[in-house]
Amino acid sequence: MEKVEKLVLHEVGMRDGLQIEQKIVPTETKIKWIESLISSGADIIQLGSFVHPRRVPQMADTDAVFRHFISSPKKRNCVFSGLVLNEKGLERGMACGVEMFCMGVSASETHSKKNTGMSVSEAAERITKMAQEALKAGKKVQVSVQSAFGCGYEGAISEERVIRIVERFLGAGLRQISLADTAGMANPAQVEKLFEKIRSLAANVECACHFHDAWGLGLANVYAACRSGVRYFESAFAGMGGCPFTRRGMGNVCSEDMINMFMKMGVLGDVDIDAIISVSKEAEDFFGRKLPGILYKTKDGKKEEVSK
Amino acid sequence: MEKVEKLVLHEVGMRDGLQIEQKIVPTETKIKWIESLISSGADIIQLGSFVHPRRVPQMADTDAVFRHFISSPKKRNCVFSGLVLNEKGLERGMACGVEMFCMGVSASETHSKKNTGMSVSEAAERITKMAQEALKAGKKVQVSVQSAFGCGYEGAISEERVIRIVERFLGAGLRQISLADTAGMANPAQVEKLFEKIRSLAANVECACHFHDAWGLGLANVYAACRSGVRYFESAFAGMGGCPFTRRGMGNVCSEDMINMFMKMGVLGDVDIDAIISVSKEAEDFFGRKLPGILYKTKDGKKEEVSK
Repeated sequence: MEKVEKLVLHEVGMRDGLQIEQKIVPTETKIKWIESLISSGADIIQLGSFVHPRRVPQMADTDAVFRHFISSPKKRNCVFSGLVLNEKGLERGMACGVEMFCMGVSASETHSKKNTGMSVSEAAERITKMAQEALKAGKKVQVSVQSAFGCGYEGAISEERVIRIVERFLGAGLRQISLADTAGMANPAQVEKLFEKIRSLAANVECACHFHDAWGLGLANVYAACRSGVRYFESAFAGMGGCPFTRRGMGNVCSEDMINMFMKMGVLGDVDIDAIISVSKEAEDFFGRKLPGILYKTKDGKKEEVSK
Repeated sequence: MEKVEKLVLHEVGMRDGLQIEQKIVPTETKIKWIESLISSGADIIQLGSFVHPRRVPQMADTDAVFRHFISSPKKRNCVFSGLVLNEKGLERGMACGVEMFCMGVSASETHSKKNTGMSVSEAAERITKMAQEALKAGKKVQVSVQSAFGCGYEGAISEERVIRIVERFLGAGLRQISLADTAGMANPAQVEKLFEKIRSLAANVECACHFHDAWGLGLANVYAACRSGVRYFESAFAGMGGCPFTRRGMGNVCSEDMINMFMKMGVLGDVDIDAIISVSKEAEDFFGRKLPGILYKTKDGKKEEVSK
């Protein structure tokens, strides 16, 4: 494995973790959780998405949350990212102080059509323009390919389709590229192979990964990504984001479990894992159900060791 | 990753999965479960261990189970392995038809003393002699290093200590070497590094791995082992083997979840995963609690795909 100089932790639980939850988290609770996540040492925190409140009521206060934190002394060195789906969202994000814009294009025609009403090519055109606009405004920008490892509607997605979108991004001067396993279909061998190809497309491409833990493969996929040179990792406290109606659903890779792995690997220092665990425990109380994460359920984040 | 020609699946749920369970599985139930596991296409199934029945009552019928299966038409090509701890166990195993003997030495002095009353060096001496005796008798033999990735009592275990034991095994003509993460402390980078070293010690060494899924790292460790050339994988149906008093304990890597990963990676064919899932479901009913495995809890082994 290439020597790991610096891993970048991108906490997306406040957006991808919460967006499907029916029970609305009040703004003051969000603020408290985000303060803990900042104090954990996360490099980037996604505070929310800019979508119509009717579509995702949980995200209705995203602008307010950004306004609260952007000038807060509790901000520290943390970068605040926001997900935008269209020009209107970009405008809102610009107005409330988003520092890093995240936006994506699906590699699946069906998923793209259902999600955006646009073909992949149309969506890529539009997102690329938005991304360039944000870059010009001095913002950080991360563009992603959704359904990069398979599509719930279409099944397998060829590497060529993913690469075509990435090449378009690179051609437009975009360098922070995330591949998202939207449907939870990735396997570690596939992850390693695809990221190696993406990294070979341009010298200065910065790869990020976004996995959902559908079959217990989340951390294996994270390890595979790390092995192939990915250094940006998106994850959610407590593994939030799964379907609340299945015992172990399609949640994001769990932040504290992932960080625990990286710490054991010796490639990560200076993360206050307890600060994340405290948010996971509060989220469990708030939603009134066990969440997918493992570490937060153990006593003080430690398990009793047993012998064979 | 080196091309994978053939993965060897070693199902250890009937031994390492059951041994800590208080509720005794009747012999006829064991036989039914083992029949399903054979029909899944497992290459090797560990039918039990040869320990004193007072120490592990769950294993009291190991000899009877071997006698039942060794001449059964349902045996197919499956190899039946048994764990032995001492000469008495070896004798019992020889008498009832064990085809592959598994035996191990801990890399941790404290673990070795507590478990066997012997120092690591004494245990290595004794196990090596037993292994050679079994080899001479025409049996397959797998020798393992327990606590190879860390010890619950001592903490970190240096690679040198593991390598010293493996070199002793190799010097005695033993070629099937398993590293066991007895205390569930392994991380994937460590796994990859250690197995690469072990494989470099001798050209024809055949490496096996045995992981417990303490922190959600089980499959990441399996992937890392596979990446480093390991081709023998020990696992237990439903991820049995965890402490029954914790929600998600220290179970073995779950067979069906691991096989699902390998199938997605395209390195495994011809496994009837449903046959294993049926055993996991019966074990859940028998023990009356949810077990750690993921796949067996999903509808028909399939999860609904969701979109970002």
